[in-house]
Amino acid sequence: MNEALHAALQRASRHQRRFETRFAAYFDSLTDPAGGKLETPLHGAFPSRALDLVRDMSLRGGKRLRVVLLNEAAALVAEDGVAGLDEAAISIELLHTHGLIHDDIIDNSPVRRGGPSTYYAYRHEFPDQPDTALALALLAGDLAAFLSLRVLLTSGLPADRALAMAAVLADTGAGTITGQMIDLERDFHPAPDLDFLHAVTEFKSTRYSVLAPLRLGLLAAGADHTPYDTELRRYATALGIANQIHDDWLDLFGDPAALGKPVGSDIRSGRRSYVLRALTAVCDDAERKLLDEASGDPGCDDETLDRIRRIARAHGVDRQLRAEADDYARRAEAEAATWRERWRPEAVAFFEHMPAWSVTRDR
Amino acid sequence: MNEALHAALQRASRHQRRFETRFAAYFDSLTDPAGGKLETPLHGAFPSRALDLVRDMSLRGGKRLRVVLLNEAAALVAEDGVAGLDEAAISIELLHTHGLIHDDIIDNSPVRRGGPSTYYAYRHEFPDQPDTALALALLAGDLAAFLSLRVLLTSGLPADRALAMAAVLADTGAGTITGQMIDLERDFHPAPDLDFLHAVTEFKSTRYSVLAPLRLGLLAAGADHTPYDTELRRYATALGIANQIHDDWLDLFGDPAALGKPVGSDIRSGRRSYVLRALTAVCDDAERKLLDEASGDPGCDDETLDRIRRIARAHGVDRQLRAEADDYARRAEAEAATWRERWRPEAVAFFEHMPAWSVTRDR
Repeated sequence: MNEALHAALQRASRHQRRFETRFAAYFDSLTDPAGGKLETPLHGAFPSRALDLVRDMSLRGGKRLRVVLLNEAAALVAEDGVAGLDEAAISIELLHTHGLIHDDIIDNSPVRRGGPSTYYAYRHEFPDQPDTALALALLAGDLAAFLSLRVLLTSGLPADRALAMAAVLADTGAGTITGQMIDLERDFHPAPDLDFLHAVTEFKSTRYSVLAPLRLGLLAAGADHTPYDTELRRYATALGIANQIHDDWLDLFGDPAALGKPVGSDIRSGRRSYVLRALTAVCDDAERKLLDEASGDPGCDDETLDRIRRIARAHGVDRQLRAEADDYARRAEAEAATWRERWRPEAVAFFEHMPAWSVTRDR
Repeated sequence: MNEALHAALQRASRHQRRFETRFAAYFDSLTDPAGGKLETPLHGAFPSRALDLVRDMSLRGGKRLRVVLLNEAAALVAEDGVAGLDEAAISIELLHTHGLIHDDIIDNSPVRRGGPSTYYAYRHEFPDQPDTALALALLAGDLAAFLSLRVLLTSGLPADRALAMAAVLADTGAGTITGQMIDLERDFHPAPDLDFLHAVTEFKSTRYSVLAPLRLGLLAAGADHTPYDTELRRYATALGIANQIHDDWLDLFGDPAALGKPVGSDIRSGRRSYVLRALTAVCDDAERKLLDEASGDPGCDDETLDRIRRIARAHGVDRQLRAEADDYARRAEAEAATWRERWRPEAVAFFEHMPAWSVTRDR
């Protein structure tokens, strides 16, 4: 492995571990009269149960790639110990929690992050009152959204910095919601074009998973992100598309054992993924019939999935998508390479190496 | 009518009219590339449809009592022309819109503010896809929440002021969500005690409808609200309880023609209102049986409602609740009277007269 990448991944792992401790402490502070306490009613048990579920979902996090990007973005311009990075990380992860909780209502998903979704946690607690379960999950998601902004607004950072960071977060939140809307809209189209798919990727995930961490990291470190925003967007957009193509690829061609989850969920849910789009463009009538029948069929079996996989390989869709993901990853890398003369080399090296690493993991 | 009250109501009406124009202009600005534009995907029609529905619901506002309170709170310390008041008003009304949209999902309500709820607007657009309708209504509510904070964060106010105002809003948002949770929890109790009802009133409505406007008005006018926060809370809490008791009273004893809507919805939905609590405390076994059967029965007819009304009157519940509402209104008035020496007399007079006026309207 490339040395700079190795160093960057080690730093990433440190960021992640430190963050887990800090995130748990944040949730403790919400009930601590000595500081940070969220004022909640003295009566009733529902609010504290909701806070527990928001906490559980938040702390069951995965790779925390957003937190790593945020820390490395700050490291572009400043040494360690940047004030406000923890609050920014908590804020962006709470925004993610908000999205997950509401997404799982929308998709009626029982499982998330290796445990029950918040919605289904409530379904189990109120087996005879599905409406109450839905209401409480909806409200728990809302609570996460307000907490996400609150942590930046009460961070004790200089006012202009805190304000700029919170403005990024509110814009990101609103933008991500519009992304979730066109994600739903996409599946009403029999064959959405590539620009539509790119727009979904951009608004539904890239904005909050890549662009917001970059902006927030620079802001926390005292650098105004706006003069560089066009470059940051180019980097984020390319990395976001590379990752989404790779994710879609993994969902058909990935190894379930390595991924730790079953594949084929995009086909079964009828999602108009990059894979489905590429396949539809090249298959013949008989193949398309098979594909149309499988797509959106929750009961689509592994054998059918295997046939689709073979068809895709025969048409070169497998290689084509890997090449496309690589191509977008290279664009992001090239963008980051232009930062060498301006920003700190270690962090720039991270941004250069990350795209290629992220589209080859689990391949 | 008392002269000071008359003048205050005239000012209130001016605040309201001016606000309607300003609120419509705000929604125009969200799609105006020249300023204030919300960045949304270039592809897809769902985001702009959601913005239209958020706009429709927001502009179908009623008395805008929150906006009036906010303007009068600023007038306690400053003459006209306070910067940031419009943004604060828009913010608080968008927070309200957010609550209405999500509430109507929770309650499965088809109608709101004399038109379709956002949820049912989508149900009509997607008659065969109730899940899509629910998803889009949920997301439209989320969008309103992020917009509510965004308008304060991008207001161009001095950073410390904007930050303090946004912090009030995020805290208020989170607190209101916990209020909605205990509002749901209340109806799981056969007979919640008075403190529980007060807590629901406080968190579900008083915080955002009274206390937040008071705090935001003072902040916009350049006054730090924290030295006065205990007094503001006492005023808000008393006014909030007075209004809630009055609202609950109107729902059984009010005149449907004057109210412009049917009465009895609390009984039919099984809500543990101040009225139900007072009735339960005094009625005999036979009366309680009737009450238990009617409460939570959506088909409860007008005749049954009339019997309940007669029982309530016979036990003096009618007079008792009016007296309680008056008592809390007087407490709020007495609190405001202590502001005379410190703050501007016209606005203080408004806060003194408002409570009694608000619990006698529609009686």
